[in-house]
Amino acid sequence: MAKNVSDEHGSKGVETISSSSSCQSSSSPRSSPYVHEVGVPPKQNLLKEIAAVVKETLFADDPLRHFKDQPSSKKFILGLQAIFPILEWGKHYNLSKFKGDLIAGLTIASLCIPQDIGYAKLANLEPQYGLYSSFVPPLVYAFMGSSRDMAIGPVAVVSLLLGSLLQDEIDSSANPVGYRHLAFTATFFAGLTQFILGFLRLGFLIDFLSHAAIVGFMGGAAVTIALQQLKGLLGIKKFTKDTDIVSVMSSVFSSARHGWNWNTILIGISFLIFLSVTKYIGKKQKKFFWVPAIAPLISVIISTVSVYATRADKHGVEIVKNIRKGINPPSVKEIFFSGQYAGKGFKIGVVSGMIALTEAVAIGRTFASMKDYQLDGNKEMIALGTMNIVGSMTSCYVATGSFSRSAVNYMSGCETAVSNIVMACVVLLTLALITPLFKYTPNAILASIIISAVVGLVDIEAVTLIWKIDKFDFIACMGAFFGVVFSSVEVGLVIAVSISFAKILLQVTRPRTAILGKVPRTATVYRNIQQYPDATKVPGILIVRVDSAIYFSNSNYVKERILRWLADEEEHVKENSQPRFQYLIIEMGPVTDIDTSGIHALEELFRALQKRDIKLVLANPGPVVVDKLHASKFQELIGEGRIFLTVADAVRTCYSKMELEP
Amino acid sequence: MAKNVSDEHGSKGVETISSSSSCQSSSSPRSSPYVHEVGVPPKQNLLKEIAAVVKETLFADDPLRHFKDQPSSKKFILGLQAIFPILEWGKHYNLSKFKGDLIAGLTIASLCIPQDIGYAKLANLEPQYGLYSSFVPPLVYAFMGSSRDMAIGPVAVVSLLLGSLLQDEIDSSANPVGYRHLAFTATFFAGLTQFILGFLRLGFLIDFLSHAAIVGFMGGAAVTIALQQLKGLLGIKKFTKDTDIVSVMSSVFSSARHGWNWNTILIGISFLIFLSVTKYIGKKQKKFFWVPAIAPLISVIISTVSVYATRADKHGVEIVKNIRKGINPPSVKEIFFSGQYAGKGFKIGVVSGMIALTEAVAIGRTFASMKDYQLDGNKEMIALGTMNIVGSMTSCYVATGSFSRSAVNYMSGCETAVSNIVMACVVLLTLALITPLFKYTPNAILASIIISAVVGLVDIEAVTLIWKIDKFDFIACMGAFFGVVFSSVEVGLVIAVSISFAKILLQVTRPRTAILGKVPRTATVYRNIQQYPDATKVPGILIVRVDSAIYFSNSNYVKERILRWLADEEEHVKENSQPRFQYLIIEMGPVTDIDTSGIHALEELFRALQKRDIKLVLANPGPVVVDKLHASKFQELIGEGRIFLTVADAVRTCYSKMELEP
Repeated sequence: MAKNVSDEHGSKGVETISSSSSCQSSSSPRSSPYVHEVGVPPKQNLLKEIAAVVKETLFADDPLRHFKDQPSSKKFILGLQAIFPILEWGKHYNLSKFKGDLIAGLTIASLCIPQDIGYAKLANLEPQYGLYSSFVPPLVYAFMGSSRDMAIGPVAVVSLLLGSLLQDEIDSSANPVGYRHLAFTATFFAGLTQFILGFLRLGFLIDFLSHAAIVGFMGGAAVTIALQQLKGLLGIKKFTKDTDIVSVMSSVFSSARHGWNWNTILIGISFLIFLSVTKYIGKKQKKFFWVPAIAPLISVIISTVSVYATRADKHGVEIVKNIRKGINPPSVKEIFFSGQYAGKGFKIGVVSGMIALTEAVAIGRTFASMKDYQLDGNKEMIALGTMNIVGSMTSCYVATGSFSRSAVNYMSGCETAVSNIVMACVVLLTLALITPLFKYTPNAILASIIISAVVGLVDIEAVTLIWKIDKFDFIACMGAFFGVVFSSVEVGLVIAVSISFAKILLQVTRPRTAILGKVPRTATVYRNIQQYPDATKVPGILIVRVDSAIYFSNSNYVKERILRWLADEEEHVKENSQPRFQYLIIEMGPVTDIDTSGIHALEELFRALQKRDIKLVLANPGPVVVDKLHASKFQELIGEGRIFLTVADAVRTCYSKMELEP
Repeated sequence: MAKNVSDEHGSKGVETISSSSSCQSSSSPRSSPYVHEVGVPPKQNLLKEIAAVVKETLFADDPLRHFKDQPSSKKFILGLQAIFPILEWGKHYNLSKFKGDLIAGLTIASLCIPQDIGYAKLANLEPQYGLYSSFVPPLVYAFMGSSRDMAIGPVAVVSLLLGSLLQDEIDSSANPVGYRHLAFTATFFAGLTQFILGFLRLGFLIDFLSHAAIVGFMGGAAVTIALQQLKGLLGIKKFTKDTDIVSVMSSVFSSARHGWNWNTILIGISFLIFLSVTKYIGKKQKKFFWVPAIAPLISVIISTVSVYATRADKHGVEIVKNIRKGINPPSVKEIFFSGQYAGKGFKIGVVSGMIALTEAVAIGRTFASMKDYQLDGNKEMIALGTMNIVGSMTSCYVATGSFSRSAVNYMSGCETAVSNIVMACVVLLTLALITPLFKYTPNAILASIIISAVVGLVDIEAVTLIWKIDKFDFIACMGAFFGVVFSSVEVGLVIAVSISFAKILLQVTRPRTAILGKVPRTATVYRNIQQYPDATKVPGILIVRVDSAIYFSNSNYVKERILRWLADEEEHVKENSQPRFQYLIIEMGPVTDIDTSGIHALEELFRALQKRDIKLVLANPGPVVVDKLHASKFQELIGEGRIFLTVADAVRTCYSKMELEP
């Protein structure tokens, strides 16, 4: 709302507040000399007003600030730097920073290689696609992203979600080629969604998924993923395709007699214990953070060598078998740009792109606030979107920021996104040279690596805190969790989104209202009498505060709630034979805006009060509200001198008038 | 939020406000003796808290108030009276009231009979179904409804909407029987939807359609309906099935050469002028309100007689032809309770039921507030739902409150819902005796009656007011209007709902924030410095007010907006070489609630400020917020003595401390 208020103020003689002490003070003999009444505000310029709203909604962070008053050559450089932040921070890059990045990059590479192979399986893709997705996307991100700590690549939850959505359309075992094509299509549209959201500065849309819902969804997804790993861990051959806990557990138990392979179980369980112990060590001793980071790779090496040496694969231990050597093949031609699968890929892409975005932005923000640098959410989305679009054309599936690897990256002392480049180089070398060596890696190891990675997503601490702070949030969290665990990721997601929206809608339909009283030992402070039970009501005057903008969604409720407060209080007054109410003061401070329905509600309230011979008085309306009250002639309707700066002023004036009347 | 605050207060020695003057006053030498600091509130009982939220959300109007402390026989009677309000007001019914109801009933009957026949055509049904729907539903409503003024029956917009939705599924001319069955199915589910919404007390859901969107939608529907009547008015035989203005106008002009029937046009236009003149008379002279009310029936009689006399139907004047004699046949067996059409009927029913509900509740509320009686929205929905369920089993389609007929009802001096019974009786007699007489009624007359009825739905005055008050509302209004006119009712409806939701979502994502300053000539009043340009900032202290609950949807924005205020102000301070900021005070008055994401945002804000060596202080948090700040240990995080009752108290304390520090 425009600085022109101050420019225009005074010039037309319109008083924003009539502090000129003229109109009200004379009629209120007992009041202090200045009663502040709120007058008609200066007229706003319509275009400026709209521009201000658009700016605040879409450009709240004022992204073009740096471009102001710069020559156009400088503007061009700044523009390039805005798209490729590497051009900015690259100038100050030096050897000591590279040292940090190198160590961090090597550490996250050792963590990501076994994870990638496992996550590709979650997405029902062949293992190399996981590695591909840890090669191209991190490179793109390093040039365009602005987070210094985020480690890019495939992540568990998005892999599961994508796999589960894709499987609903094309069966991956019956038609692996079509499935893969659809996966690239979905990845393309996921990237496009992310890019467009960022470009149109609609990044705030992802804020509609509440923290609590995300915690529940992630926890549920982690449990589901862990359960899925029982197949690999127990060496079960016939396994359900459903992901809900009931199907999975019955599948596990029905195969207990003949389907479990004890060699597999031995390998799986022992390495799971090994990984858990290293994790524990890393947690207890911060300086050993690298132990759990390299443990997965060590497990893979040891187990692969021992399977190769003992030829355990001949004894029923499932191994990775095929893993293609060489770097990412191009896949532009595999994307469906038309036909029925384009539409399906689009839908799946939008959903998985949004979830990937939510995860990446949450991670980016967390680490940015730990190192105290700013992260432009919309710019991040453009970077992530570009990275996935490029990825979809180079045989990658949806990549995003991984929480576990980003944490390792941070703790290994990464300085810039160069650690992602280092990681990508290691993955490149792996793809080019040593992938065939993974042939004898037992699936059980991948399963135990995934289990040990996802347990961190079940955030008991956060759930406890949510329970303590907000019960409704807790319901959202549990709803999403059980939705994922007992039904499917999609159902869990729908529950999470619906509950988030329900909360927003509830918030705007049922705003709080309160009766105010004067806080003792203050002259002018009026507060909620339920919060401050010592506060005293003013006889003959009812003071109500409305705690929200009055819009169509709540206007009727607000009106009826105020009338109910009045009815309740009138009853109370009658019982105690106190004087009847002559004034109703509404504290409008928190009412930041009002629309046509809101004005109607106020008019109806005014008329209802008129019939009861009670006068309506407003205190402390904001600039927008005053404007609209005036435009709708409501100010004229309720009469002169009925809008005050503070409740205290209103009470003082009403009180003095009350004594003049009978 | 629970009265138990006051019950428990003091008993545990927990201070809601530390007005005991002990902790803060000593360290603030220049302050007045009492600095009000906000302490830890007493623990709330969880169940009570949840009960309070549920009560406020679903039972805001306290519907069981009357049942308290009553013997069970009395409770039974009260329960019956709650379901059938006629049992209550019937006791006081007398002859003088009946006189009013009789006149009003006869007047609305004369208006409804020609309208019903026309509206049935809008819904692509045979004329008698319109009359059926003015017989059974008003009777049911009279027993269960609580509005004294609403006239029940088919209405133009719902007929158009229903016709257009049904036509998308089954072609009414190719398969009239299937079409009719689907119409009853939709009516059944419309009634069920209304009943369930009322029964589950979810009536507030219809508040999500904003007033502005409704005005636009109704206006657009009126224009569409009027355009549709050109077929009857001009006697065009080949007419488009689309409802958008482009198709209709091209259909009209392409048939201009050979398709127009000049006899029809003569009849249509002359009676349209007659109806308009009577409307004008009724508007100018309130006592002649009955002239426009009976004009339609008079037109029908005159035109029918003259067509019969001149046998104009032989000269191309289209007539009603078939209209079945006798009262409503049962139609329970015609409803699809299973199969694909059950699902389609369900969808159509939900949409048209909601729209019918919106219209009825708006009408009910309008007249209730004019006569100053209370209307229980949820109870109304149960009544309307029952009426449509019964209607669907007796060959009626969706009925609701008609605005034009309700207004006539009101002006004719109706006293109770008995006027609906009178109207139903007249319709009964019409059906039983004289329907065959309508055979020669020219369609052109029905067209002119409908046009004259719907022009009132285009509410230019309301649109002007919306433009003046709220530009965003205006966009919603125009969006809905043009959506209906240029595309279809469904598209218009979707636009109206989407814009309404977008507004709600925008409201919660981008709450307002403001910098506060001390208003001159007050000691303690701090207000938005943009609204009150005279207000002065306090050197070294930045005071920001957040104007909304802090939820996941806005927590990140709020945090970043506050930091941006700080950055802007710091720049300003530097330029004018004023002292740097040492304190940031957040006025939390309007922050009615906070969730886990909100707490996280505050924590991040606190840390960001800590790095800049600025202390965070809160002023005036509400009871719920204090509770949650405490539960999340945020209060401990920011330290002792950082939460105050008012901004003035906070400023005083900070200011005195600032002088002690360098």
